Amino acid sequence: MRMYDIIETKKRNGVLSDAEIKFAIGGFVDGQIPDYQMAALLMAIWFNGMDAREITTLTTAMAHSGDMIDLSAIDGKKIDKHSTGGVGDKTTLIVAPIVAACGGKVAKMSGRGLGHTGGTVDKLESIPGYRTVLTRQEFFDTVNKCGLSLIGQSGNLAPADKKLYALRDVTATVDSIPLIASSIMSKKLAAGNDCILLDVKTGSGAFMKTLDAAIELAKTMVAIGEGAGRRTVALITDMDTPLGFNIGNALEVVESMEVLKGRGADDLTAVSLELAANMLYLADKGSLEDCRRLAKRAIADGTAFETFCAMVKAQGGDDSVLRDYDKFPKAPRKREVRAVADGFIAKTNAEAIGKTAVILGAGRETKESSIDCTAGLVMHKKLGDTVKAGDSLATLYAANDALLDSAQICYSAAVAISAVKPVTPPLIYARVTLNQIDRFRF
Amino acid sequence: MRMYDIIETKKRNGVLSDAEIKFAIGGFVDGQIPDYQMAALLMAIWFNGMDAREITTLTTAMAHSGDMIDLSAIDGKKIDKHSTGGVGDKTTLIVAPIVAACGGKVAKMSGRGLGHTGGTVDKLESIPGYRTVLTRQEFFDTVNKCGLSLIGQSGNLAPADKKLYALRDVTATVDSIPLIASSIMSKKLAAGNDCILLDVKTGSGAFMKTLDAAIELAKTMVAIGEGAGRRTVALITDMDTPLGFNIGNALEVVESMEVLKGRGADDLTAVSLELAANMLYLADKGSLEDCRRLAKRAIADGTAFETFCAMVKAQGGDDSVLRDYDKFPKAPRKREVRAVADGFIAKTNAEAIGKTAVILGAGRETKESSIDCTAGLVMHKKLGDTVKAGDSLATLYAANDALLDSAQICYSAAVAISAVKPVTPPLIYARVTLNQIDRFRF
Repeated sequence: MRMYDIIETKKRNGVLSDAEIKFAIGGFVDGQIPDYQMAALLMAIWFNGMDAREITTLTTAMAHSGDMIDLSAIDGKKIDKHSTGGVGDKTTLIVAPIVAACGGKVAKMSGRGLGHTGGTVDKLESIPGYRTVLTRQEFFDTVNKCGLSLIGQSGNLAPADKKLYALRDVTATVDSIPLIASSIMSKKLAAGNDCILLDVKTGSGAFMKTLDAAIELAKTMVAIGEGAGRRTVALITDMDTPLGFNIGNALEVVESMEVLKGRGADDLTAVSLELAANMLYLADKGSLEDCRRLAKRAIADGTAFETFCAMVKAQGGDDSVLRDYDKFPKAPRKREVRAVADGFIAKTNAEAIGKTAVILGAGRETKESSIDCTAGLVMHKKLGDTVKAGDSLATLYAANDALLDSAQICYSAAVAISAVKPVTPPLIYARVTLNQIDRFRF
Repeated sequence: MRMYDIIETKKRNGVLSDAEIKFAIGGFVDGQIPDYQMAALLMAIWFNGMDAREITTLTTAMAHSGDMIDLSAIDGKKIDKHSTGGVGDKTTLIVAPIVAACGGKVAKMSGRGLGHTGGTVDKLESIPGYRTVLTRQEFFDTVNKCGLSLIGQSGNLAPADKKLYALRDVTATVDSIPLIASSIMSKKLAAGNDCILLDVKTGSGAFMKTLDAAIELAKTMVAIGEGAGRRTVALITDMDTPLGFNIGNALEVVESMEVLKGRGADDLTAVSLELAANMLYLADKGSLEDCRRLAKRAIADGTAFETFCAMVKAQGGDDSVLRDYDKFPKAPRKREVRAVADGFIAKTNAEAIGKTAVILGAGRETKESSIDCTAGLVMHKKLGDTVKAGDSLATLYAANDALLDSAQICYSAAVAISAVKPVTPPLIYARVTLNQIDRFRF
């Protein structure tokens, strides 16, 4: 078998055999197949795609390139959640404790933020003392004791994906549905959960700019998950405008706690409840309607919040900050961004708002950048709100005025004020299962 | 400027600017741009192609990546010839002395053979003493004195092409017309001739399997040449069956001398005369009809043969072998391949016959292989000929019987005998100039 022939086949829009796909992935991870041949294959896949069987084989080969985590030491159904990444997307901090409070098990490894989207691990590390690195045994014990554990990726999870992604990133082959789907799902399969809920974002702040593309990606990932014996559902959620008001690591922890305490932002609360309900549904906790009731009750009765606090304590964190936010370290400088005209907030560019947060120090430009957990912004006006000239649109938080200067320019450009009231998009557009796509406006 | 953006543009079927193309080629040759990024760009070009301006810029950038040879020390019009490569294609040995005998100047650097096609330099080296490596001054002096000089490629000619070709060869991106055309023409532009005649082969033994593809390649190359100020014409010639009877280095020199002596194979003579006439036409030696007469006369009056002998002597070769072929070293072993049935020769697979010659030792499997200049084969029956069972189809020449055994199997499979007389293809299908494509059957 030769990599050359595999490239040639895909270039000619042929179908690769399982053996060919395994040979290509195995050889690439081993270093037998050079980057330039893989780059050529990736570009051929970008043009000609892959069929469902090819994608499933690719994903499985990538998953098996490293550790396949065995979660059998954890009792009950383990439910994973994946978001394709958004600005101000702190839902994991909310849905994981809700699901755990209702009897689901969430043994979740999360990533760090890169570019304009944040990462759960960075957010958690703003809680003083919180350990995002646990031993495998500590991880299992925490889930068995608290119902959940949120940690960073550990072990050698899908190294094929790591190597492939690095290559795609420099060869303009990131935006391919088979390659995105296999990248995400290889890590999910390796992570060993029984069920997977996918939160596929669509809109200006998301990777998938159109609803159709988001649905296509969701269908592909659900098929991979189910093909590998994991119950998988996807929700298509909006990322045309950021979720909630706060962006930045400590700021998002605070906002998430507000949701768990029953007084959070409406949009964030609604999306989180729907995600949690779907996770509980996957874990066989009843009908979707039942699961929605369970999720709401876990907020109303405080069990979700207490579950989160218990996990924070179990992982060495100071949970008192979650009760008294003043205990969080504070950014030394802040500034208001003010409206220059009267009107409606007609557009909030989620990507540009995410970039504002990066400028402030809340995110990473490159993998090597360090993060300021106190930096970020709080939006005061969201899409469709009325404003008067001089109103504060947002408060920016950073280490110094120079950062505030740059960020202020970026934020001002991200928000458009108009005399016409805009149509606000729904929060959730569709629910995708193996056999069905339900489109709605939620 | 970033290579990533250049890949992305071409992937989206955009048009690259001159600056972008120069950046990509320059950076690749410098080693600033890694192979994997170039591989991705090459594959994107394979899918989306390039327009005429992009191809010309690419070719010029590749040509200027190394030495641009200045032939102004040679008087008169310098006419280059390029063949896309065929089996038994020894026309350079014939047309170059014809053109020189008629007053054109042929300062030609040729390549070595690889795979199933032979190379002019290998053929010339079968002449005892012939030097294919000359200093620049010796090269100029030989052309000024004899009207022609045939040498190997020297200097640092289009190193970008060398590096790109090596990458295309392992990434399944060889078969792209913009990439083939720029590869060939970059070396032709760097070689510094005033005019270029292209012999584009089509058929089973050629790289371009169909006439349409061959014409497309010819059009592209003619446009590049004319765009760079070189008068350029292409002939599309047949390579469904080998040209002439002899394949192998010394064997092809002998057959070429027979043509120059006016007693060569009909097909080889006819094609050579047409190629020579077109070169003389490019050198302003009269109308195409006039040039055909000139070419014929140079054979009839012996001046073409004497011109070739003079060059051989000037380059240190023993021209007595050209008058007495028995002086060539001989292969120790030979064998007849015999017909197994009566009928017509219905198919001669030029590529398989070329491979037979490689097996015998006349060609290279890899760049490192050495060549046996005495090895090769002489066909006795060509396409359309009648045969009786037991007739010799060909005589094979090699160093030992083991090689003959393998080659015999290969040759037998290359020739099909049938009860039905086949339609024989024309020798020349078309003539392509900047403004015109004349299709005919010659």
